Amino acid sequence: MPDDFDRMWSDLAPVGRSASTTGYFRQPFTSAERECRAWFVEQCEARDLRVEVDGNGNTVGWWEVSTGSTTGGAVLTGSHLDSVLDGGAYDGPLGVVSALAAIDVLRDRGFAPGRPIAVAAFAEEEGSRFGLACLGSRLAAGTTTPEQARSLTDRDGVRVEDAMAAAGLEPALGRSDWLERVGCFVELHVEQGRDLVDREAPVGVASGIWPHGRYRFDFTGEANHAGTTRMEDRHDPMLTYAMSALAANKQARLAGQRATFGRVEVAPNGTNAVPSRVTAWLDARCRTEVDLAALVGAIEKQAQDRAGRDGTGLVVTAESVSPAVEFDPSLAARLAGDRPVVPTAAGHDAGILSAAGIPTAMLFVRNPTGVSHSPAEHAEIADCHAGVDALADALEELAS
Amino acid sequence: MPDDFDRMWSDLAPVGRSASTTGYFRQPFTSAERECRAWFVEQCEARDLRVEVDGNGNTVGWWEVSTGSTTGGAVLTGSHLDSVLDGGAYDGPLGVVSALAAIDVLRDRGFAPGRPIAVAAFAEEEGSRFGLACLGSRLAAGTTTPEQARSLTDRDGVRVEDAMAAAGLEPALGRSDWLERVGCFVELHVEQGRDLVDREAPVGVASGIWPHGRYRFDFTGEANHAGTTRMEDRHDPMLTYAMSALAANKQARLAGQRATFGRVEVAPNGTNAVPSRVTAWLDARCRTEVDLAALVGAIEKQAQDRAGRDGTGLVVTAESVSPAVEFDPSLAARLAGDRPVVPTAAGHDAGILSAAGIPTAMLFVRNPTGVSHSPAEHAEIADCHAGVDALADALEELAS
Repeated sequence: MPDDFDRMWSDLAPVGRSASTTGYFRQPFTSAERECRAWFVEQCEARDLRVEVDGNGNTVGWWEVSTGSTTGGAVLTGSHLDSVLDGGAYDGPLGVVSALAAIDVLRDRGFAPGRPIAVAAFAEEEGSRFGLACLGSRLAAGTTTPEQARSLTDRDGVRVEDAMAAAGLEPALGRSDWLERVGCFVELHVEQGRDLVDREAPVGVASGIWPHGRYRFDFTGEANHAGTTRMEDRHDPMLTYAMSALAANKQARLAGQRATFGRVEVAPNGTNAVPSRVTAWLDARCRTEVDLAALVGAIEKQAQDRAGRDGTGLVVTAESVSPAVEFDPSLAARLAGDRPVVPTAAGHDAGILSAAGIPTAMLFVRNPTGVSHSPAEHAEIADCHAGVDALADALEELAS
Repeated sequence: MPDDFDRMWSDLAPVGRSASTTGYFRQPFTSAERECRAWFVEQCEARDLRVEVDGNGNTVGWWEVSTGSTTGGAVLTGSHLDSVLDGGAYDGPLGVVSALAAIDVLRDRGFAPGRPIAVAAFAEEEGSRFGLACLGSRLAAGTTTPEQARSLTDRDGVRVEDAMAAAGLEPALGRSDWLERVGCFVELHVEQGRDLVDREAPVGVASGIWPHGRYRFDFTGEANHAGTTRMEDRHDPMLTYAMSALAANKQARLAGQRATFGRVEVAPNGTNAVPSRVTAWLDARCRTEVDLAALVGAIEKQAQDRAGRDGTGLVVTAESVSPAVEFDPSLAARLAGDRPVVPTAAGHDAGILSAAGIPTAMLFVRNPTGVSHSPAEHAEIADCHAGVDALADALEELAS
């Protein structure tokens, strides 16, 4: 089994990797992500898994059961293959590769499942192209409607369905029939923090996901000449933004929560022009929904106060807000054994399926630095192998 | 004459104007700027001006003199046709259109010049594409070498010569022979401040240009997951940048000078990623060179201090620094009459030619709001006509 994992991992390693940063650019429906997906289909077929591609761009490989009861539905595993811009190798692909390797383990064990086992590669989990994280699982579960998805565009103005069609897919947005067959979901993922490092455990089980949201801050001012306009005559939205970015960091530190401005777009973005507009996206995550509302409210209040002093305008739009997710406690207990149970502040397809009523669990594999969404994201190979074993055990337990 | 000006002005008005912002996008060697340039050639030819295009992308129309002395060289006027990103209609084109209209006035007056009169449209005055302002006049005057120009690229990595060739020009970077024939230069420009409003004068004369520079600030940090990375574990270059932008504003206000961060680029620029890198450009202008060095030094010191606290890196590179320009005082006195004489903090091709030893003067046309580098940039039509008359008087005086 370790060989299977290692071979698959090195197959996938070069796809979409930037030579200059060594980070990954696997945005959905781009050539790099298509190549990952083609590789996944090939691997499914090599294992006699029946491949199904839904109208939302999700790909699923099925280990069907010819005999026995299918009461309780199929056991779903997998994760996603897309990355953030300049991301790491593990976030997403580790769950897909481990799922395929776990199937190899089960077959080596001679396991005959009592229920179907399916491996999914969900589309646009990161939201790196269309701005809405977990787009594929949201559409599959009906959490996002086709109309909502149709209103999204990437940075070049391309719509989801057009991007899918250009990638050779046949878009048919909306609830996915195959998900009706699923009785439970186990997603394996690289940890994106250091809880498992602190607990000296290679693998852990997730208790839930912090509520989190993305908020667009549109700061408007008055374009002007950077040389000739007196400082006191300016309405410079860059200043309002800069103060808001510092305020977000300070509020999050004070509250022990998370707030980040990681994306900014400026117009006209010229060295010798006071900007007319700065658009920035706030990513905020808290332990509770009450905390999240309070944190975002505090940041917005400071930003609006500053806008008043700068003579600029500010409109805040919540682009997506995900409530807290508590994973199925009995499922977590069954999978945990003596493994640590830890929360996460990262969103996942598992959160979407859980909120849609599917009993869901997550396994985390230790990340020595905790760094994620970065070329430096890492997991030791022995820990990856431990993750495959844990996932195989979980699938065997659930599909018996 | 007013008719000539008005007709030319409305010819040019739609070229490169954005329907959504009403601002102008006339970046050098793009189709919009080529259209402006083709229009200029047409207007020159309609006036029997001999057209010369040099290897730096500058276009000049010559009113040659068949008889009489050419001692002292030709009288050059004109300005530029390119704009900043989302700029106004007046910055540049007002000087070119007024020059052509002034020639019409001189011919209506039956004026027979004793020296050649030339009208120039300089290339890439704004530096909006290749980052170095006054590129065309700098190359023509030898202030920038061909080697330096060859090291420049636009945001898509295109080099100057390739952009010129793609626009149908024949690049041959380096000193322009035609400039050797020039004895003095008078550039008319829309004012980019409100000195003339305060003095209730439609037209003024420039005394000089403040020293100014463009400085690239490269902030580096550690990319990470915006949700799962604890605030205290981050090395977020966005925070260092944000504090630097506020510091630049504060230092400039305290000193009565100008400092602006109007252009920012973030990597990877994803909502859910702490950035690995923020690059931002500081535009700084002061009354004296000593003040400029002190202002930039103070901003950099605050930025470095903050980088130390954020655990981020900062490298500051001066991309271009222009010393103070004092225009030829006797020329200014000849042209001023009872017109106000005002300084400016904006760079101009006139500054480059003046620094290269060519006696130079500038005429400013009143700008009711002072707004420039913006779709809101404006000059009243009566003031534009007054500008044409003032320029015609100046050319008659200098070319007699």
